[in-house]
Amino acid sequence: MNILKNNDTQTDILPSWRDGHTKESILRFVERVTTEGRVGFVSPVERIAVFDNDGTLWSEKPFYFQLAFALDRVKALAVQHPDWQEQQPFKAVLADDLAGVLSGGMKALVDIIVATHAGNTTDEFEEIVSTWLSNARHPDSGRLYTEMVFQPMLELLDFLQANDFRTYIASGGGIEFMRAWVEDVYSIPPEQVIGSTIETRFEMRNSGPVLVRIPKVDFVDDHEGKPVGIHKFIGRRPILAFGNSDGDHQMFQWTAAGDGLRFIGIVHHTDPEREWAYDRDSPVGRLDKALDEAREKGWTVVDMKRDWKIVYPHEASRR
Amino acid sequence: MNILKNNDTQTDILPSWRDGHTKESILRFVERVTTEGRVGFVSPVERIAVFDNDGTLWSEKPFYFQLAFALDRVKALAVQHPDWQEQQPFKAVLADDLAGVLSGGMKALVDIIVATHAGNTTDEFEEIVSTWLSNARHPDSGRLYTEMVFQPMLELLDFLQANDFRTYIASGGGIEFMRAWVEDVYSIPPEQVIGSTIETRFEMRNSGPVLVRIPKVDFVDDHEGKPVGIHKFIGRRPILAFGNSDGDHQMFQWTAAGDGLRFIGIVHHTDPEREWAYDRDSPVGRLDKALDEAREKGWTVVDMKRDWKIVYPHEASRR
Repeated sequence: MNILKNNDTQTDILPSWRDGHTKESILRFVERVTTEGRVGFVSPVERIAVFDNDGTLWSEKPFYFQLAFALDRVKALAVQHPDWQEQQPFKAVLADDLAGVLSGGMKALVDIIVATHAGNTTDEFEEIVSTWLSNARHPDSGRLYTEMVFQPMLELLDFLQANDFRTYIASGGGIEFMRAWVEDVYSIPPEQVIGSTIETRFEMRNSGPVLVRIPKVDFVDDHEGKPVGIHKFIGRRPILAFGNSDGDHQMFQWTAAGDGLRFIGIVHHTDPEREWAYDRDSPVGRLDKALDEAREKGWTVVDMKRDWKIVYPHEASRR
Repeated sequence: MNILKNNDTQTDILPSWRDGHTKESILRFVERVTTEGRVGFVSPVERIAVFDNDGTLWSEKPFYFQLAFALDRVKALAVQHPDWQEQQPFKAVLADDLAGVLSGGMKALVDIIVATHAGNTTDEFEEIVSTWLSNARHPDSGRLYTEMVFQPMLELLDFLQANDFRTYIASGGGIEFMRAWVEDVYSIPPEQVIGSTIETRFEMRNSGPVLVRIPKVDFVDDHEGKPVGIHKFIGRRPILAFGNSDGDHQMFQWTAAGDGLRFIGIVHHTDPEREWAYDRDSPVGRLDKALDEAREKGWTVVDMKRDWKIVYPHEASRR
């Protein structure tokens, strides 16, 4: 394994991953595709790796962190929208009635996203997200959301980047929401972030040109949308895909169907002590059909409880 | 200037550009943004350069080469569409009546593009474009279309790439049409191609998953669409933009409005002998408002006749 490159000054590769089948399967794949002259070698330009974000690189419970942002934005914007006091789903948000919000189904969520993610310029929106992330706290852990990223996955991103992979995010979350912080946290530059978008419009103002965010959904990068978005943005088929839910299933299938060696990884949330445990019955991050196909096809399923020495960076002293 | 890097084995930088103000302005800009410690230095990750394609990197007369492809496809597909014999704009295409096609305006062109660019998988479409480009000949020059790229612009791309710029295409043309050949011709990888798109749909077939091209326009990457597409795909503002028409005007404005040094370049078609001469009155590649703003703001206008020793690669012996 000494041919593998490691960005870290530590000599250990993937130090937060316990030795065993899962870690071995990752190391073996990277060794194969990076060993020149060996069957399975992949040239650096083709080393495309795609990662889902929510539930794969950071936690997603009790609900998507971007939804927490949106709910906080409803409260911040309520003074400008007196009608929201009587209008669902906003009324439920303002009353902290999450069950009431969710009872409105997908339509309620889209109404909330659109109302809270549009109406400003792209520069203003980035600033709003950054400010929120510097202050907002997770309701259970009390930590910053950006502290709730998975240390083993940070090490995996780092390890792949050191081996000339280009690591992309392919997330159902909003591109602009993610771009505000993923470069700092994951070392993934903005041009390697694929996600859902609302429309933007070019406007020439007295102060100069701006891009204005319009309250209209442009593209939903989830389920069937993931391979569509990956193909549109990258134009190459990934050789590695990592996700955690049925929303990633078509991305897995698209990636696995390419010629040559492919790696499909699934983060299985099995750890109610350190994180959460959920799969087939969870409304957020449901993992059902993709788990069946993973077992059938021999894809790598990460057992969070068994395979990870620590979950979050702040536990590093316990590793 | 000896700090500037040149990919070429030739010692001369930009050998097909005549010495003078235009070449100087390019060299001076690249020197400034790449000289560490100097005011104006730009870190390599922020060195984003965007190039229009039609009329900027290759010719676009007598009409866009992608339209030539579409017209040939109408003829190839006509046997499957007997109704086209009596249905406009297809009837006009089949009768080689270009004036008749153009009399249908934008709607006729969209009908032709949609009919000829959809209905197959992304893999099939790439194959169709590649085959066409290997065989089709330009009506005036008799050359392959990919031989009608501008040698001075190839040198500029090469020079910027050697100085750690990431060179993107931002074209009104179709992403998938361009991706089939631009990596070979311009050394621009598929993930650095931004353009217009039709919708695609993920489908699971017995043979495996495919992406099917749907006869529906998804995004038009022209005029106001260019900064929108650039922001969506890259998420950073370019520091250099090169184009040739009013379709690039908003891209110029968006690029120029960033902080720090910016370079805006316009290819002005002034050479009726070696290429074509056109600007304010041309239906294809009209250059009017952007030319006025270029003069007002001091953007760099390339005078093709004066500034380029040769236009196409096949003239290289004449340089």
